[in-house]
Amino acid sequence: MINTFANDLAEIRRRNPLVHNITNYVVMNFTANALLAIGASPIMAHSVEEVEEIVGLSSALVINIGTLSPPWVTAMALAAAAAEKKRIPIVLDPVGAGATRYRTETAGKLALEHRISVIRGNASEILALAGGTSATKGVDSVNTVEDARTAAMEMAGRLSCVVAVTGAVDFVTDGKRSVAIANGSPMMRRITGTGCAASAITGAFCAVQPDPLAAAAGALVAFGIAGEIAAEGNPGVGTYAAMLLNRLGDLEPEMVTKRARIIESGFRKL
Amino acid sequence: MINTFANDLAEIRRRNPLVHNITNYVVMNFTANALLAIGASPIMAHSVEEVEEIVGLSSALVINIGTLSPPWVTAMALAAAAAEKKRIPIVLDPVGAGATRYRTETAGKLALEHRISVIRGNASEILALAGGTSATKGVDSVNTVEDARTAAMEMAGRLSCVVAVTGAVDFVTDGKRSVAIANGSPMMRRITGTGCAASAITGAFCAVQPDPLAAAAGALVAFGIAGEIAAEGNPGVGTYAAMLLNRLGDLEPEMVTKRARIIESGFRKL
Amino acid sequence: MINTFANDLAEIRRRNPLVHNITNYVVMNFTANALLAIGASPIMAHSVEEVEEIVGLSSALVINIGTLSPPWVTAMALAAAAAEKKRIPIVLDPVGAGATRYRTETAGKLALEHRISVIRGNASEILALAGGTSATKGVDSVNTVEDARTAAMEMAGRLSCVVAVTGAVDFVTDGKRSVAIANGSPMMRRITGTGCAASAITGAFCAVQPDPLAAAAGALVAFGIAGEIAAEGNPGVGTYAAMLLNRLGDLEPEMVTKRARIIESGFRKL
Repeated sequence: MINTFANDLAEIRRRNPLVHNITNYVVMNFTANALLAIGASPIMAHSVEEVEEIVGLSSALVINIGTLSPPWVTAMALAAAAAEKKRIPIVLDPVGAGATRYRTETAGKLALEHRISVIRGNASEILALAGGTSATKGVDSVNTVEDARTAAMEMAGRLSCVVAVTGAVDFVTDGKRSVAIANGSPMMRRITGTGCAASAITGAFCAVQPDPLAAAAGALVAFGIAGEIAAEGNPGVGTYAAMLLNRLGDLEPEMVTKRARIIESGFRKL
Repeated sequence: MINTFANDLAEIRRRNPLVHNITNYVVMNFTANALLAIGASPIMAHSVEEVEEIVGLSSALVINIGTLSPPWVTAMALAAAAAEKKRIPIVLDPVGAGATRYRTETAGKLALEHRISVIRGNASEILALAGGTSATKGVDSVNTVEDARTAAMEMAGRLSCVVAVTGAVDFVTDGKRSVAIANGSPMMRRITGTGCAASAITGAFCAVQPDPLAAAAGALVAFGIAGEIAAEGNPGVGTYAAMLLNRLGDLEPEMVTKRARIIESGFRKL
Repeated sequence: MINTFANDLAEIRRRNPLVHNITNYVVMNFTANALLAIGASPIMAHSVEEVEEIVGLSSALVINIGTLSPPWVTAMALAAAAAEKKRIPIVLDPVGAGATRYRTETAGKLALEHRISVIRGNASEILALAGGTSATKGVDSVNTVEDARTAAMEMAGRLSCVVAVTGAVDFVTDGKRSVAIANGSPMMRRITGTGCAASAITGAFCAVQPDPLAAAAGALVAFGIAGEIAAEGNPGVGTYAAMLLNRLGDLEPEMVTKRARIIESGFRKL
């Protein structure tokens, strides 16, 4: 699978796929710059008046619920329906699922009613979403990485999508196949928007790679490698944000192959 | 009081308090990164569907009126009511009060109808707000720092809150006690969002320090010191923004004690 | 004309004109920092409750349709009407015109119904807008720089405004006089918001320079020079964004005169 990562990065650089983002206010600028750096073309558009047309131009749709309000939720559903119809991949980032009912329900509804390619969140978001989309609402265990992985596998199988749980080690699963990725740096959690950027970059990889498991894994490996190289020299947090964009911008495909740290892989039963 | 500043900074780093921001579009990213750098956990949420729940998770609420519209004003009032009920501190940043009736009235209404812990603004904003919240609407003097300080003391006493007037020298008062702070750098006015970040960081200090005068003063001292260290070496404005985050991120509590420049302190009569 | 550029830059630094921006979420922070760096005072405000009052305080209005929704479109029209009435310059940035009907129509309506001083866009946006504002809707040729220039001259003459088509070489025309500008760097297209910042800086130049052709050309020359100096040393994309702000901040008027690269100028017939 590692070779697909490098090929996909090169392909993004070649095709510059248009990635439509309906995302939160906090990270729009950083997300757009991250997508440009990796080689994609970002477009942000959120109004019902135009999201379907924007989807019509795009190669992937990324929905991020970080700063929700009702008009945006309506547009997210419209855009998702258009993306399904056009058969372009949808990435869902359930920011803050579990923190409020509004977020949990919005993310759950999007996940249940649309054909999502990849759901990417941290452990607590995935646990909350898995609970919210499960008929039994049975996930009430302590919030641990292991629980989130189990929930991710269950939800991935149930919804026929890929679920990525990011953290110190990222875990990506389609319910049958699972990959754990040890790239990245603790610095990535010290600035805002790295999770959201990871989701957007997953959208870029999905635009060129039909297997969403390979796409999500490739995105997290590439982003993680950029993040760990950016942390060399121990920059301050403000400098780190710029360095991360620098390293996304000059990341070589061969470097992805060389530095990928996939620490487990294969098929796991539920 | 200086010792509380260092302790409070250390306490923020220990507790990582969740600070709920309803703030303007321009500064959301910078504010989130400033809060992360100082050690707090930022969350941005603005819709009536969820602000009360977000307040329920948070240790402080920061309301900033920099890019207002009616749904946001409604959410601000709901969030403020929830924060009062939960007895968590509220910081109000009346951005642009005095520039338009909408801003002056919105800030005035929030200040009058809710138990605000700290109001932070520049001289003209505080003068406008003091005029707008005073029954006599009597502040029609020339807009000077001295007038703003007098207005701040009057308003602080009347509303039982702390008022911080920031500028070349910051002035913080609860109507009886007053502190002037000479930390900071002129560079801070050359980039957008430093005032808004100061308000957000005040929220972080309020989350760990029950005396809002000490909290506001500590926040302005800490932020000012980060700002003056960041200006060393005379960086350009773009670099300065990153340096300011770097220095917030590595600011040591002892440094706060050592570099605090409180040039007047004590009790002043109105 | 080159001497007006340096004088205008010095004048912006002297007067710090207030520039009202109704712009998109992605670039608000970068735009505000770019305006501060060049010496202007940015204000962002978008609600119908206050845009007319903000226009009343401002020396220029910049309308950017990058992340549209109906309440913003209403506010844009109100603000534009107020700016016309007050006789302050309006700059229109038709971001994404041609990509969706909503954008093309919104930009077209603003261009037709208001006295715009400068419309700034890339080749495809100008072609789309020229098609959308033309009775014959006749621009259906291939999307080339030369077509965009022809369309810009036609539209400028028809709407009595200045049209700037930015790209590897910028082209500015009022329908009779035309200027081409070869300043800038390919790096400017690798980060988000440089086009939007160019429009905002055009607003700052319009605030001090009554000839909109000279204002637009001066803005693009100044911004382009900052962009090319910032690219020296081949920074990464994240660093480049900071360097661009640095170089806008320390750009000397004499440097503008010295480095301006106007490669054609004069009167051209349609």
